[in-house]
Amino acid sequence: MSILQDLQNGKTVKDLSMDELEGLCYEIRREILSVVNTNGGHLSSNLGAVELTVAIHYVYDLPFDSLLFDVGHQCYAHKLLSGRAKDFDTLRTYGGISGFPRQEESEYDAYGAGHAGTAISAALGLIRAAKIRGEQKHVIAMVGDGSFMDGPSMEAVNDIGEEPIVVVLNDNNMAISPNVGGLSQYLNRVRSAQGYWNFKSRTANFLKKIPGIGNGLHDFFYKLKNSVKVLFVKGSLFEAIGFTYLGPIDGHDLPMLIRTLKRAKNLNRPVLVHAVTQKGHGYHPAEEEPGKYHGVTPYIVEHESREQDVNYKDVMVDAMDALMHRNPNTAIITAAMLDGTGVEKLTKQYPNRVFDVGIAEAHAVTLACGLASGGVKPYFAVYSTFLQRGYDELLHDVALQNLPVTFLVTNAGLTGQDGATHHGVFDLSFATHLPNVTILAPSCAEELYDMIAWSETATNPVFIRYPKQGCHAMHTLVPLEKSPWQVVSISHRAKAVVLAVGSMVPVAMMAADTLALDGIDIEVVNCRQVKPLPDRMLEKYANLPIITLEENAVIGGFGAYVAVRCGELGLPVRLLPIGVPDHFVLHGTTGQLLHEQKLDVEGVALRIREFIGK
Amino acid sequence: MSILQDLQNGKTVKDLSMDELEGLCYEIRREILSVVNTNGGHLSSNLGAVELTVAIHYVYDLPFDSLLFDVGHQCYAHKLLSGRAKDFDTLRTYGGISGFPRQEESEYDAYGAGHAGTAISAALGLIRAAKIRGEQKHVIAMVGDGSFMDGPSMEAVNDIGEEPIVVVLNDNNMAISPNVGGLSQYLNRVRSAQGYWNFKSRTANFLKKIPGIGNGLHDFFYKLKNSVKVLFVKGSLFEAIGFTYLGPIDGHDLPMLIRTLKRAKNLNRPVLVHAVTQKGHGYHPAEEEPGKYHGVTPYIVEHESREQDVNYKDVMVDAMDALMHRNPNTAIITAAMLDGTGVEKLTKQYPNRVFDVGIAEAHAVTLACGLASGGVKPYFAVYSTFLQRGYDELLHDVALQNLPVTFLVTNAGLTGQDGATHHGVFDLSFATHLPNVTILAPSCAEELYDMIAWSETATNPVFIRYPKQGCHAMHTLVPLEKSPWQVVSISHRAKAVVLAVGSMVPVAMMAADTLALDGIDIEVVNCRQVKPLPDRMLEKYANLPIITLEENAVIGGFGAYVAVRCGELGLPVRLLPIGVPDHFVLHGTTGQLLHEQKLDVEGVALRIREFIGK
Repeated sequence: MSILQDLQNGKTVKDLSMDELEGLCYEIRREILSVVNTNGGHLSSNLGAVELTVAIHYVYDLPFDSLLFDVGHQCYAHKLLSGRAKDFDTLRTYGGISGFPRQEESEYDAYGAGHAGTAISAALGLIRAAKIRGEQKHVIAMVGDGSFMDGPSMEAVNDIGEEPIVVVLNDNNMAISPNVGGLSQYLNRVRSAQGYWNFKSRTANFLKKIPGIGNGLHDFFYKLKNSVKVLFVKGSLFEAIGFTYLGPIDGHDLPMLIRTLKRAKNLNRPVLVHAVTQKGHGYHPAEEEPGKYHGVTPYIVEHESREQDVNYKDVMVDAMDALMHRNPNTAIITAAMLDGTGVEKLTKQYPNRVFDVGIAEAHAVTLACGLASGGVKPYFAVYSTFLQRGYDELLHDVALQNLPVTFLVTNAGLTGQDGATHHGVFDLSFATHLPNVTILAPSCAEELYDMIAWSETATNPVFIRYPKQGCHAMHTLVPLEKSPWQVVSISHRAKAVVLAVGSMVPVAMMAADTLALDGIDIEVVNCRQVKPLPDRMLEKYANLPIITLEENAVIGGFGAYVAVRCGELGLPVRLLPIGVPDHFVLHGTTGQLLHEQKLDVEGVALRIREFIGK
Repeated sequence: MSILQDLQNGKTVKDLSMDELEGLCYEIRREILSVVNTNGGHLSSNLGAVELTVAIHYVYDLPFDSLLFDVGHQCYAHKLLSGRAKDFDTLRTYGGISGFPRQEESEYDAYGAGHAGTAISAALGLIRAAKIRGEQKHVIAMVGDGSFMDGPSMEAVNDIGEEPIVVVLNDNNMAISPNVGGLSQYLNRVRSAQGYWNFKSRTANFLKKIPGIGNGLHDFFYKLKNSVKVLFVKGSLFEAIGFTYLGPIDGHDLPMLIRTLKRAKNLNRPVLVHAVTQKGHGYHPAEEEPGKYHGVTPYIVEHESREQDVNYKDVMVDAMDALMHRNPNTAIITAAMLDGTGVEKLTKQYPNRVFDVGIAEAHAVTLACGLASGGVKPYFAVYSTFLQRGYDELLHDVALQNLPVTFLVTNAGLTGQDGATHHGVFDLSFATHLPNVTILAPSCAEELYDMIAWSETATNPVFIRYPKQGCHAMHTLVPLEKSPWQVVSISHRAKAVVLAVGSMVPVAMMAADTLALDGIDIEVVNCRQVKPLPDRMLEKYANLPIITLEENAVIGGFGAYVAVRCGELGLPVRLLPIGVPDHFVLHGTTGQLLHEQKLDVEGVALRIREFIGK
């Protein structure tokens, strides 16, 4: 690792020769592969962005100039080049460096991310701030082709005006899922426009040879000039919306990248550099199966606090398969998360009823509403954290029109090493106040299966939220129709009752067992129906101290809803709401994070003990 | 009104001659003008869409075919043509027909709206549902040029594929505010591409006259053919993203519209019909000042329950003017709401620090984060209901990075005749669970002024939420730094305390006066700082029954937050949370709606009496 070491000892990327830069790329790849193999992380996207990142560090003056990463899952080379090489082996580990850019981590991280579509907006803000402050700086946003078509990106592009930002379109022809949509097809055409420059010079020579053409023809060609460029360069879409378009260029050709970036830097207006890259470049297994190597599971075994008999994702697929098989008027939507949600396994059997809309959650929610309005029962399988992008549509389209859309909200709760931008700890807070909706949270495999089956006949919006992790196969079920809640740990001498949601049900049961050893009896209820609340059950428990327990923000979640409903019912309650406290949770294994947040068995038992002791 | 009457008596638009259709347009305009003058409503946009709507009703088989309106504030002609002419004089009144499309109101309203950017997504859902169900139907989405560039619209366009939807681009070169951005400039170029067809035929003739050109030139022209079209038709942007482009055509030329729509209908693939219309067409005052006639205040005086000394909008402008004057490192953003928010009044004096980003709230939030990251203090003035569109960015960009962005959240609470899609009754529910934020709610003019002044030095995100309506000039203030809450109605014999937020503070005070007459003493606290909660004050009041009072959804709002915080502090409280119950509120005057929701003085006093009586 000699060049990376040199950089740690004061040398900068700008001091390196072209040969050394190529060598640096090799070292960076080796380092990324080594650490990701151990710690897990985003492999394909990071291997694809190495030369781009090195070229940007070479051409621009970071951190005075600002480099932003859209989504941010391609920032590893950047971290290695900005003083974090020595800590890089702590990547994504508890207390270590984040897998995404974070302002708090380094002044080189001009802007944080984790979700798609924000880099161009933020870049515009940075360049406008510089203008207001009278600073002369450059701002570069690296955006993947999957993110570029995301709604907020497009809104930002529309607002660029003449601001001199450079958007580097890192075009690997594949977002996380294979890319979909009009822009994708457009980019395919651009990439395949081979030999334009050759043709152009041949044409010029050819035209020169035509003798005696009049002024009319000259004018005609003059008028066509831009048009010719449009036809062959095919950057017309980008030029139509205000960019100077440079490309397409090979995103692994370092000298070419440096030349093009220098040109872009000098243009002093909005420039789009279209770099065609290969996901997983330089590592053959990832080049051939980039999807498989998008997010890599670490070789080291995660300290896992949840017991796993089966996987919620597989249960969802089984349940949806059965449902879509028996009911031809069903459809399922994913927003570029075919693999992550499990929806991929349904595509083959139901090709006309599975819709991957790209990174476009807002559109996905409304598309579902259109399907429902047209008499088809739609499902949207989506990570909790990404559904945040469709919040307005949940209110304005789903809830207001009371449409029977079902949301399969996966990756709810603390999700582990991806950190703050990927935890799903706000969905109960943004969903419980939506009128008309039913919210369910399974605590085991059978419950998820049954809830999905049940949702088929629901005539209103339904949210089913479940964690990323596996689940118990588990306990005998009372059907949801019979009782919205199920007592899972009965005590006739109970000193308190724990109203637990989803992933916290087994935790509550184990905490109850722990407390029972000390002679403290508590009752545990599996509150699988989060909304609407069963008033009768609240009335039953109001005379006991109530602990609500959820893997969700404590503000605005299940506990808050219980408190409000008890208030409306005139029930004075003594309540301890347990959930994720009012702060963001960083990265680490799920077990580490649950422990840190006092949401493991030990923490929950302790808090209940303190509460009852009062 | 003979033709409209004929239509009510069984005749359909399809039965009419071209002369009658023209007459119908005249009658529709007269009816819209008459009702809007009395009831208020959207005038300019509706006058501009008359011929388009008539043509669509003539060409398509509604309601079997589906017509969707983006935003929906251009649907009056459609309502008049779909069985609602006889009730049209109830437009926007309590219990009357809505100013926006609503599925519940008519089967002709294929899809409801109120916010921008959803029609193309929903149209795609409807056409895909039809395909799944084996139905042969047409789906038409009418979208304004301001909405077309909205993020979710763009996401939908990217997902169209080969679905045969017809998007009618109702291009009046002006969203609510003058249109901004790249697409707007693009459309300007398209509109000004005069005489393309003439030129094309002249060119063909001209080329025929050139003698003896060889095969090479022939090939060259062959290759240029599409390119010529691109240059002159300039629908290239739309064609690049997959549409067949028809236009631009005169959106008030009925025969041309009908011909073009028939052609679009037969193409059986995605078509964009580009119709250039004039906002306010047919009514000279509105043609000349369409912005002024966007939303018209009714001539009849609203039954107004709020006393108005001054207007919050004006106070905001004064406060921001002073702030931007003394601090050159401040900026303010609006999303196509220059007039509605008051920001327009700042544009002249601070042209380089006022940013109108178009209908693009998600982008606006992240742009503000970029400004803040670059050392400029940003303000985003936005309607409560439209800020919903930026919810993910509030979490992912603002709160997580703890950036000092201030949100001037106007039109909070029940806003009146625009109805369910325009009430701002969810902002406390989607903001209180954001970590790191401060939330303020003024109850009078001075408080808003002081809060804005205070926000200048805040180093974290701040939300200041205030109603559309006017406010009292009001009471002596204790500065916010001295006390986050202020007791406004003291009683040493208080039987209960009302913790009131913003617009509800005067209501609580009047309710307290009412109750005092019956010998019931209650204390009223102006909880102008909604977050963080002052624990000391909660501890002080925990021994009394607490009533929380807010013009926001009762679930997940201020009351819920108080309950959770008291639980965390180990304070057993008897709580009555009063707010907007768990349902959507329709249209009517603000006074009527506050009364209906029991949020007026009478309703609040009654509920407090019942609560204390228990």
